[in-house]
Amino acid sequence: MRAAVLEEFCKPLVIRDFKKPEIKDGEILVKILASGVCGSDVHIWRGLDPRVSTPIILGHEGCGVIEEMAGEKYDVFGKPLNEGDLIIWDRGVVCGTCHYCTIYKTPSLCVNRWTYGISKPCNEPPYLNGCYSEAIILHKNTKIIKLEKSVDPATIVSAACSGATAAHSFEMHSPKVGETVLILGPGPLGIFHVAFSREYGASNIIVIGGTKERLEICRRFGATVVINREETSLEEREKIIRELTEGCGVDVAYECSGTISAFNEGLIHLRAGGTLVVPGFGVPSGSTMIDCFTMITRKNVKIQGVWVSDTEHLYRAVKIIQNGKYPFHDLITHKKPLEEATEALQLMMERRAIKVVLLPNNYP
Amino acid sequence: MRAAVLEEFCKPLVIRDFKKPEIKDGEILVKILASGVCGSDVHIWRGLDPRVSTPIILGHEGCGVIEEMAGEKYDVFGKPLNEGDLIIWDRGVVCGTCHYCTIYKTPSLCVNRWTYGISKPCNEPPYLNGCYSEAIILHKNTKIIKLEKSVDPATIVSAACSGATAAHSFEMHSPKVGETVLILGPGPLGIFHVAFSREYGASNIIVIGGTKERLEICRRFGATVVINREETSLEEREKIIRELTEGCGVDVAYECSGTISAFNEGLIHLRAGGTLVVPGFGVPSGSTMIDCFTMITRKNVKIQGVWVSDTEHLYRAVKIIQNGKYPFHDLITHKKPLEEATEALQLMMERRAIKVVLLPNNYP
Amino acid sequence: MRAAVLEEFCKPLVIRDFKKPEIKDGEILVKILASGVCGSDVHIWRGLDPRVSTPIILGHEGCGVIEEMAGEKYDVFGKPLNEGDLIIWDRGVVCGTCHYCTIYKTPSLCVNRWTYGISKPCNEPPYLNGCYSEAIILHKNTKIIKLEKSVDPATIVSAACSGATAAHSFEMHSPKVGETVLILGPGPLGIFHVAFSREYGASNIIVIGGTKERLEICRRFGATVVINREETSLEEREKIIRELTEGCGVDVAYECSGTISAFNEGLIHLRAGGTLVVPGFGVPSGSTMIDCFTMITRKNVKIQGVWVSDTEHLYRAVKIIQNGKYPFHDLITHKKPLEEATEALQLMMERRAIKVVLLPNNYP
Amino acid sequence: MRAAVLEEFCKPLVIRDFKKPEIKDGEILVKILASGVCGSDVHIWRGLDPRVSTPIILGHEGCGVIEEMAGEKYDVFGKPLNEGDLIIWDRGVVCGTCHYCTIYKTPSLCVNRWTYGISKPCNEPPYLNGCYSEAIILHKNTKIIKLEKSVDPATIVSAACSGATAAHSFEMHSPKVGETVLILGPGPLGIFHVAFSREYGASNIIVIGGTKERLEICRRFGATVVINREETSLEEREKIIRELTEGCGVDVAYECSGTISAFNEGLIHLRAGGTLVVPGFGVPSGSTMIDCFTMITRKNVKIQGVWVSDTEHLYRAVKIIQNGKYPFHDLITHKKPLEEATEALQLMMERRAIKVVLLPNNYP
Repeated sequence: MRAAVLEEFCKPLVIRDFKKPEIKDGEILVKILASGVCGSDVHIWRGLDPRVSTPIILGHEGCGVIEEMAGEKYDVFGKPLNEGDLIIWDRGVVCGTCHYCTIYKTPSLCVNRWTYGISKPCNEPPYLNGCYSEAIILHKNTKIIKLEKSVDPATIVSAACSGATAAHSFEMHSPKVGETVLILGPGPLGIFHVAFSREYGASNIIVIGGTKERLEICRRFGATVVINREETSLEEREKIIRELTEGCGVDVAYECSGTISAFNEGLIHLRAGGTLVVPGFGVPSGSTMIDCFTMITRKNVKIQGVWVSDTEHLYRAVKIIQNGKYPFHDLITHKKPLEEATEALQLMMERRAIKVVLLPNNYP
Repeated sequence: MRAAVLEEFCKPLVIRDFKKPEIKDGEILVKILASGVCGSDVHIWRGLDPRVSTPIILGHEGCGVIEEMAGEKYDVFGKPLNEGDLIIWDRGVVCGTCHYCTIYKTPSLCVNRWTYGISKPCNEPPYLNGCYSEAIILHKNTKIIKLEKSVDPATIVSAACSGATAAHSFEMHSPKVGETVLILGPGPLGIFHVAFSREYGASNIIVIGGTKERLEICRRFGATVVINREETSLEEREKIIRELTEGCGVDVAYECSGTISAFNEGLIHLRAGGTLVVPGFGVPSGSTMIDCFTMITRKNVKIQGVWVSDTEHLYRAVKIIQNGKYPFHDLITHKKPLEEATEALQLMMERRAIKVVLLPNNYP
Repeated sequence: MRAAVLEEFCKPLVIRDFKKPEIKDGEILVKILASGVCGSDVHIWRGLDPRVSTPIILGHEGCGVIEEMAGEKYDVFGKPLNEGDLIIWDRGVVCGTCHYCTIYKTPSLCVNRWTYGISKPCNEPPYLNGCYSEAIILHKNTKIIKLEKSVDPATIVSAACSGATAAHSFEMHSPKVGETVLILGPGPLGIFHVAFSREYGASNIIVIGGTKERLEICRRFGATVVINREETSLEEREKIIRELTEGCGVDVAYECSGTISAFNEGLIHLRAGGTLVVPGFGVPSGSTMIDCFTMITRKNVKIQGVWVSDTEHLYRAVKIIQNGKYPFHDLITHKKPLEEATEALQLMMERRAIKVVLLPNNYP
Repeated sequence: MRAAVLEEFCKPLVIRDFKKPEIKDGEILVKILASGVCGSDVHIWRGLDPRVSTPIILGHEGCGVIEEMAGEKYDVFGKPLNEGDLIIWDRGVVCGTCHYCTIYKTPSLCVNRWTYGISKPCNEPPYLNGCYSEAIILHKNTKIIKLEKSVDPATIVSAACSGATAAHSFEMHSPKVGETVLILGPGPLGIFHVAFSREYGASNIIVIGGTKERLEICRRFGATVVINREETSLEEREKIIRELTEGCGVDVAYECSGTISAFNEGLIHLRAGGTLVVPGFGVPSGSTMIDCFTMITRKNVKIQGVWVSDTEHLYRAVKIIQNGKYPFHDLITHKKPLEEATEALQLMMERRAIKVVLLPNNYP
């Protein structure tokens, strides 16, 4: 079985052959049909994510078909799983027994959480721990959602990371009908935030970004106003936003770019009593100066960090893709065979793609 | 009628005589029995609060007896008000019709809100707008709570500002039974946060401060651990707090000192998924550097600014003082006649007092 | 000025002439362009609402143009109001000072709340207190929203009651993306619940009703499944709903018909941990038997009553009509001149209309 | 190893010997020091709980010392478990993978949940599934909290069921400082509700019950008013409660007796906008008539069912016992050896005891 292995940071991935592994009780061998190339994969590739060591099979977004199972297994709705079933799964595996899992009920903060394609190298059993691969071994604690055969793996696969993280943002704070939402950063994470904002009733959805094509996609997802950061000054954007909001500022801002400047701008555009949700920072990205009196206390604002996601969020992301109201299909600008994984990373890094999906088994 | 007037910033207040005013429909003339000297009065005195212009009668915390009323009036529980009744009132007067009052239901952010002793000078009718005075005119929109005759005005008066602001903090976020709370800053605001933390079920209440006497009072209010900032390093405090919290950090921190260093320390001691509530900044106090990835997103924390308060919060503060479980009487370290208002401000500024209360009518 | 007056319950309304009144400070004289005929008007007409005494001008849903004002006035967003402005207003007038207004911040429960067209007879000043009239006098405490000139009064007017009440339901409990909502009763209130359910992210929206045309409208508003109560048994409906919900039952049910049987059916179809929201009962409608162990404790359900609405809800209802995603225009099946008010009530009573709107000034 | 076995409903329990079992990977053999006799054990004994079949070892509340372990194990705070450790555990074992566990995050509704002492008979491996026994085998999925050696097992053991269920009630709805709480039923469940009410800031805590001794204990736990149902009429109680609440009614009522009459009375005493929490019904107890308009919609009330509990709730119950503010020690009116298990059930059934605890290993 072939997989694209990151052997050295910043270097091209290498296609390696792995022996078909024997699966243990509760494990599932999945044939990967689609593997999403995530922005954080680019960070990992470049050695910026302190959690990752090499050699590793990248890829935490996966969707595929069950090839082999050890024992009876069920999805989260109690549906029995069988060979041949199309499935998607929570990319994070949690212990289910620590205080974050059982007392705080925020399994995304589980002290024992690990992630496919990020946490485990490929030079130890069970080796196949990432989705840039023809197959993956799912650990027995993996939470699985069974999909209809008719679902397109390449479209649904982004539910696994950016979609689920966006759902987490909206669990932390969602708008109300009549409210104005601001989204900073029109990448896949930001685009999911547009969809969720619309789904949760926002009346105005403003997106600020620097890439025309991405802003255009946001508009097709339901953004009511898009502002090109390259063509406007901060003062101009402030003026536009005040005019759209009776002079108040936005009710909620979602920082989806992972940059200090977007974080700052989010705070500026917020109305008194507003909320800034911050899911965008996937890796260390520097610090910012905050005037606590003016920007936090006097404005009575809430700033809410959002770290990764859990099975609830994956489920809601799957549902928002499946409801058919949003052109998620258009999010996927490139599909590539496994051999072109390095090129896929480059496309993402250079923002020439919105989203690249690998098709390791070259399904049609 | 005599009042202590701030005529020039940083200069001693001057006792001035005012003619007994005629009250208009809906107004109430109140004889002030107790007027709290708040930390923010010191800021105003020093000219640090951009909202304030002179000449002004300071004093936004007041409790007194109705001397004269124009028309029928009721308190917030529908009790008819009469001459001779002891009352306390919301220091902020709101319009009741703007979107913050009617749509967001956060009247503390009312765009037309003004505050006794802060917003209105004393050289325009109705002149008597502050509590450092023998009498005050309450505007018809003022929300009033009638008190039993047996209530001690000097003890209850701190409900009007620090108490109400603390109640607002806990409306924004309150702990659960079993949780650990950290309070930074053991002044009157911090002490109210100790009482509310205990009242809302916190199992451990840690207070960090720099004044031994204030820390000692916190302990009497129910703090389970007090740490003197002057006698410990940040690293030592971090170690103490990790040991008290199974290595996790605190569930909630309340920044009650209005300093950048306390804000930063609050963030550091927070567990993943924890909350930092920030009611302490009453005036501009500089900026801080925040590493967004490490301190916000990765830790999945919430930072909640808290600005002033509304009638709900005043009510809950009155109730926590009245329930008799906490030694609020001990909060008042000094009682002064009106003539010593300047000295009262100095005592607060130099932290020689915990709380000073003026007794403008020298009630026993 | 002419108005349709209910002089005796169950009898035809009578057109009476009123002298143009003089308005007092803070009041507004509004020329009514559209007045919605609400299901509860039928109850009032029939003498079933214990709050109402005759003679009265019915009509609590109104939209019109300012004809005359006494003093400066602003809408809830601080926009100055002028003669000629198109406005809509909160049908309930609240005191702003009682504990429900100030402490609980639920003004819809204000102990002094009164409603246009319901609470005040027309034989006392200011006489013009209902919307089945060429003009109405708005009390100075009325909360007003200014509308663009382009807004259609007949379409927007249903925001004032069924729309606002629906918004209140969703403030009490709203679904999440991926959830299944059940709406019982496809009248105007139910139809607004379909729109809000869709707006708040429900994946499946099931409506149960007895009128084919109403169910058809629900489908156009976004219902994913409609079930005709006349053509199915309770057991069949239970089977359908279980199949749609992985065997669990619905996440949320909204009882919008005000009947005991719908209330019971809502409880039956609920999943464990689900919520039944109950805005539908406008007048006393009998009692039901509930098995507390089986239907409440064992299922861990929440039952939430919803009584009338406040200005926040009116605002959100206006916004959901204005966002253009729903065919609210089609809700209005009949437009009538003032003279046909009695016929309008009959159409509603006999369910031959979905919604009738009176046009007292015969605007085009 | 000896255990008290329910072989036939309504008949005395029989002491039976069991062979010391061999434990499998992840299991723990615990020597039971204290086993609480719960009100629902009486229902089970009498054959009223449809979930239970015989022969069974009763007892779902247990606390004991680890005698033997298979493999490394940790408690919910990550503390390693060792032989000799004193522990308490979640009486319910959940799957961790169904939608209630992973999507709704309400594991108490887990579709695969089972309970020690209730769900599994003792004629199948691992036989020792209840706490009325010298030893119990804990399933590998059991959530465990390690206790200090100094903890009294007989006092802490009631955290396992009534304490945890009470914590669940307060997760569903907790009061605010200044509010008035009503508790109906002063048994162990009600007494825990008194403690939690006080811990969460209620200003007035009213308890209604029929047993003088139980009401007296409630007072010692912090009830501010106790009312004997035997000595007052419903009208008298209504009058008392209105007087205590400014004429409004209580903010929250907790039905802790599992009787229809208490449920009804809770609804009656509720203020508009109040909440009735319903954890008390452990077994089917008949039905009640509810007037939906008057009692639910017009009053805008919330009714919240509460079924069993999860690990979070157990944790908070342990913490409230450990904080030392409440006389939980006095809750235990009788301690009995295993041989007197039947007598213990009778004491509970006849309300001659407040709480009986069995000491199967006769620890001092």
